[in-house]
Amino acid sequence: MSEPIENPPSDGLAEADAREVEPAPSWQDPATPLPQWTDLGGEVVHDSPWMSLTRHRATAPTGRTVDYGVVRPKSMATGVLPLHDDGTVTLVGQARFALGNYSWEMPEGGAPFGEDPFDGVRRELAEEAGLEARSWREAVRMELSNSITTERAVCWLAWDLRPVATAPDPTEVIAVARVPFMSLIAEIGRGAVRDSLTVATAYRAYHMAREGLLPGWLAHAMLTRV
Amino acid sequence: MSEPIENPPSDGLAEADAREVEPAPSWQDPATPLPQWTDLGGEVVHDSPWMSLTRHRATAPTGRTVDYGVVRPKSMATGVLPLHDDGTVTLVGQARFALGNYSWEMPEGGAPFGEDPFDGVRRELAEEAGLEARSWREAVRMELSNSITTERAVCWLAWDLRPVATAPDPTEVIAVARVPFMSLIAEIGRGAVRDSLTVATAYRAYHMAREGLLPGWLAHAMLTRV
Repeated sequence: MSEPIENPPSDGLAEADAREVEPAPSWQDPATPLPQWTDLGGEVVHDSPWMSLTRHRATAPTGRTVDYGVVRPKSMATGVLPLHDDGTVTLVGQARFALGNYSWEMPEGGAPFGEDPFDGVRRELAEEAGLEARSWREAVRMELSNSITTERAVCWLAWDLRPVATAPDPTEVIAVARVPFMSLIAEIGRGAVRDSLTVATAYRAYHMAREGLLPGWLAHAMLTRV
Repeated sequence: MSEPIENPPSDGLAEADAREVEPAPSWQDPATPLPQWTDLGGEVVHDSPWMSLTRHRATAPTGRTVDYGVVRPKSMATGVLPLHDDGTVTLVGQARFALGNYSWEMPEGGAPFGEDPFDGVRRELAEEAGLEARSWREAVRMELSNSITTERAVCWLAWDLRPVATAPDPTEVIAVARVPFMSLIAEIGRGAVRDSLTVATAYRAYHMAREGLLPGWLAHAMLTRV
């Protein structure tokens, strides 16, 4: 237990922004009041430049009061799947400390709150993959683990790619691979690519290619290149 | 700062299990040594029945040493998208404390380490959606946020459904909706369904329906019912 929370959590701005753009699905009855949790008070138990963890007493919609820990990352997770004209994609490989494994992913990085996530993801595409793109389309917006964290992600597809000089992050040793889009889909199915942003964005890219939501020549290359 | 870690983290078993089933993708050269992080030592700074947070000194593959906090949930995230014969799916709505919002999702829950995740997800399907299923297929396995957590998820598709009696969780007030599968896809595209497990599993279900990986009658119903 350490200092009480005197100000809104550092992701307060991002939460407010997000609420503005959170539509309700068509099947939710607008006349029915939504159940709510009540926060009885919290304190910061861990704080770093990347995240804080707060512990709360909170009353559930059922009336039951519990201790609730919330992990609050200080950035928006961003990612981009770079789609080459020939139906291949660029992926990056790196050692991940938390799980102690090696992970192949699309270029990703955290955009600190206050930075436009689109600026952040363009920087990651250059730093990690050595690419810039003239065409972008938003692919997915997700809440990554909504029972214990406030972490959000926004991911794009990008095409009309060209190489740019890279400037790697000082804690990253990055490998780069360029593989057919359908090989990425197959390796996700085998469990060889497991990063949630990459998994969701790759299947979303398949959906967009199949449903006419990407240029026809690009969708054709993605779905037929093996 | 509190007690040092004297034993492996409580998710050590799950991590060992996972490594056994983590294949490498076809493009990874088996002859090239993989870069690795070195853990110089850690301590538990937060511990609850649901997760711990450990703080480490760790040396990156580049040689740079940093402080690294790792969130370690004590369960495997599980979820199931219940596919009805008529091309509809059952979703559940609930208030989420961490983000302070209301979330529509497929039935989900944490399977504590030591419990078979498949037993856990069958329980959630009954408790949250009042359903049981005779046919199951694994859809996605993901690492939810691999730069700060060890959290993993495994999600299924289930069909041949029938109703069972429900026994709700004491902190959950659950709403249930049955909607066309393609309405779920559309609401994800609008940002009205944002849970990462649901997003990834829904697009994966679309991929499986399109690629002949589900029974033809079910795929037809999913893709045509509006």
